[in-house]
Amino acid sequence: MASFSPIDNNVGILAVEVYFPKSYVSQVDMEAANGVAAGKYTIGLGQDAMAFTGDQEDINSVALSVVHSLLEKYQIDPKEIGRLEVGTETIIDKSKSTKTVLMTLFEQSGNHDIEGATVINACYGGTAALLNALMWVDSTEWDGRYAIVVAADIAVYADGPARPTGGCGSVALLIGRDAPLKIDLRTRTTYAVHAWDFFKPNLESEYPIVNGALSQTVYLQSLDDCYTRFVQKCKEGRGEDMTTASLDHMLFHSPYNKLVQKGFGRLLFVDAWLGQGEERVAQAVQQWVAAGDIASTYEDKALEAVLKTVSVPGYKQKVALACELSKQIGNTYTASVYLNLANLVSAAGDSLVGQKVALYSYGSGSLASMFAIVPRISTSHRFSLGKMQSALDLPGRLARREKLTPGHLAAALAAREAAHGQAPFAPTFTPDSLFPGTYYLKQINALQEREYARKPLA
Amino acid sequence: MASFSPIDNNVGILAVEVYFPKSYVSQVDMEAANGVAAGKYTIGLGQDAMAFTGDQEDINSVALSVVHSLLEKYQIDPKEIGRLEVGTETIIDKSKSTKTVLMTLFEQSGNHDIEGATVINACYGGTAALLNALMWVDSTEWDGRYAIVVAADIAVYADGPARPTGGCGSVALLIGRDAPLKIDLRTRTTYAVHAWDFFKPNLESEYPIVNGALSQTVYLQSLDDCYTRFVQKCKEGRGEDMTTASLDHMLFHSPYNKLVQKGFGRLLFVDAWLGQGEERVAQAVQQWVAAGDIASTYEDKALEAVLKTVSVPGYKQKVALACELSKQIGNTYTASVYLNLANLVSAAGDSLVGQKVALYSYGSGSLASMFAIVPRISTSHRFSLGKMQSALDLPGRLARREKLTPGHLAAALAAREAAHGQAPFAPTFTPDSLFPGTYYLKQINALQEREYARKPLA
Repeated sequence: MASFSPIDNNVGILAVEVYFPKSYVSQVDMEAANGVAAGKYTIGLGQDAMAFTGDQEDINSVALSVVHSLLEKYQIDPKEIGRLEVGTETIIDKSKSTKTVLMTLFEQSGNHDIEGATVINACYGGTAALLNALMWVDSTEWDGRYAIVVAADIAVYADGPARPTGGCGSVALLIGRDAPLKIDLRTRTTYAVHAWDFFKPNLESEYPIVNGALSQTVYLQSLDDCYTRFVQKCKEGRGEDMTTASLDHMLFHSPYNKLVQKGFGRLLFVDAWLGQGEERVAQAVQQWVAAGDIASTYEDKALEAVLKTVSVPGYKQKVALACELSKQIGNTYTASVYLNLANLVSAAGDSLVGQKVALYSYGSGSLASMFAIVPRISTSHRFSLGKMQSALDLPGRLARREKLTPGHLAAALAAREAAHGQAPFAPTFTPDSLFPGTYYLKQINALQEREYARKPLA
Repeated sequence: MASFSPIDNNVGILAVEVYFPKSYVSQVDMEAANGVAAGKYTIGLGQDAMAFTGDQEDINSVALSVVHSLLEKYQIDPKEIGRLEVGTETIIDKSKSTKTVLMTLFEQSGNHDIEGATVINACYGGTAALLNALMWVDSTEWDGRYAIVVAADIAVYADGPARPTGGCGSVALLIGRDAPLKIDLRTRTTYAVHAWDFFKPNLESEYPIVNGALSQTVYLQSLDDCYTRFVQKCKEGRGEDMTTASLDHMLFHSPYNKLVQKGFGRLLFVDAWLGQGEERVAQAVQQWVAAGDIASTYEDKALEAVLKTVSVPGYKQKVALACELSKQIGNTYTASVYLNLANLVSAAGDSLVGQKVALYSYGSGSLASMFAIVPRISTSHRFSLGKMQSALDLPGRLARREKLTPGHLAAALAAREAAHGQAPFAPTFTPDSLFPGTYYLKQINALQEREYARKPLA
């Protein structure tokens, strides 16, 4: 057994802000427009709606929107920031990082002393950035300033069956010590493997190459490994007997809600595999545990059906609450699992204190991590779960969205396609369709430099 | 004055390996082939030769080559690694990170528990990755395993005046505590600002957009700021009076050697500006210091000429030794400044112990950092400067290169251009032109998945 550090800086998340576009399309309308069976997207994918945007927003603007709003809502002086890091897979420049564009928000303060760059690894980039920031505030020579972690993506798919799995959103996390959302570094686990499950080799396109079946398998294999070692580390590092039953909330990377449901079912299976958890579940899956062939279980439809049934109550109790935002705005890649966290905080606020929360992040290619989040009361009281809850205003913001048609979505994505590589370029979509306080692309000049502006807050 | 941590883990670099292609072209030959005045590249840029490769190498292969070789030469068990992170601006996939391809080197060991992804910020990505890895080994819950930081790039330019400023290379650094090359986290400084000095918005091309004059100015402005605050932090954090005179070696990001010479001259100017350093220099630049207008000094040709003259002895004594590799292989973007570090270790080995070394890293867009490197004897003796020196074998490797013609270079770059976006694809260049032990792209299949192989070591 390893020796553990006597120091606990309670590093974690102090504040959270999210951004998603005002425009959305309902999945029911998309089912009708695409001529597919009713329920294919709403039940088959488990999604309700999908946020989208036109050619007036890009990865830099959606990151600017959320970081400006974070600083504003929590009254953070730009001089209080010593690190800023972005996770994304929406790449519009191979060299210039979105982080450097975000430096415009710090220009007026004169604070140029900000470490951090942009991280890419499919939907995992935000988690990589978060772990980096946590190490930074946990390191011996930390200078006392906060870090900001941004996870942002615009997820769009070619016209066809994958298009309803898109989305758009960003999240900004303020990171420091003595955090209301402490992250337990000791028990975190990671699983990395070379896989071609989802990638973007077509650099001139926003659309990915997806091997959906492989991606689901690697998502679940990585989950198995991360969770199994998480259980071990909770025992060895904290003396805790961790099972799915001991968790109050479980947060998953959410490409579409159906995979989250499968992921939660899988945790129950692993519990049974490890000889722990509910007797009810152990009995239901005993033939697969007895067979001892884990590799064959990932695509076993009979097991999937059993897990679907046994996981219903637990999913409703521990998972569903955090998923509403992702069900409403779709896949946001790097942002997805942190939007779920924001959703949970928005719904539960200070009542989370003392509860047990775990988070599973997955990015294709692949890289996955699991860690425990410990909701607590910060001794400084500057930041709290209650403040996050009111600052987020998620029900209000979702209610103020504008429902558009599948035709509008098609026009927006056609405009994005047409915009690729154009310079000089002026967006054909105006800021009218954006929420107040949103940044937008004003123009790309003949030198290919992008200029941004903010729609007034009022 | 801040309070400082009583803990010193002596985090830093335990081992270093580099990779560069076997093929090179001499800058003298390029001057002749391009019909420019003799000395335009050799004196104007300060470069001697340029490494290049054809369509059989890509960013994943040059990273595989250097990491495999690092593990092999230093006899590192893949299970000893807990973090692996890549800095690059040679992006061939917007989503799948080079880090995940490197996981193939760990597959056989069964070690999938490896954090870290890929960082981008022009030539700064390697430094971002290095700082992340240092924080990781410095954090309270570090699990005792090592990190590997990879900085790798293939720098190519469109036919024309910028083409001789290309290059190709990678470096792998083993990171841990009790390091022979300790990095002083306390006195490190960073300067970040939004700038369009060099970027790559043309995603379908390997070639950047460069505003050379602006890039040089931002490089020097960032250097001024990083060095000024480095001097302050050495005083406040370590009680040391830091001037250029107190440094034994100064390492610079090296896009071309002439800029390194200017950078060193600039440090002498900042010393004078701060009222420190050599009287000889203070007198030579007193009119600019007296004028007090720093902004006008960056493009002042008269000042540049003065600094060029006064910096000659210091450049020869403190800078030149580390620059030979970059002069021979060209700009390697993220790898550049760490190749200089490898070059210094290769040349000086254990004699560096007790000397003062500082490093300046710059990446366009922009992001820059400066930090002190403290060469020391590791208490464990597993890693040492002497071991690095013999493992690197730089003189031997440079001598085993193959000199080719500007016509060969043009053919190699034409092949790289033609390869863009092709799938299925088989490289037209064979492994024959590679050093033993080099990875190469075997094929890209119809699904756009890339397959790699290693040329035998023997």
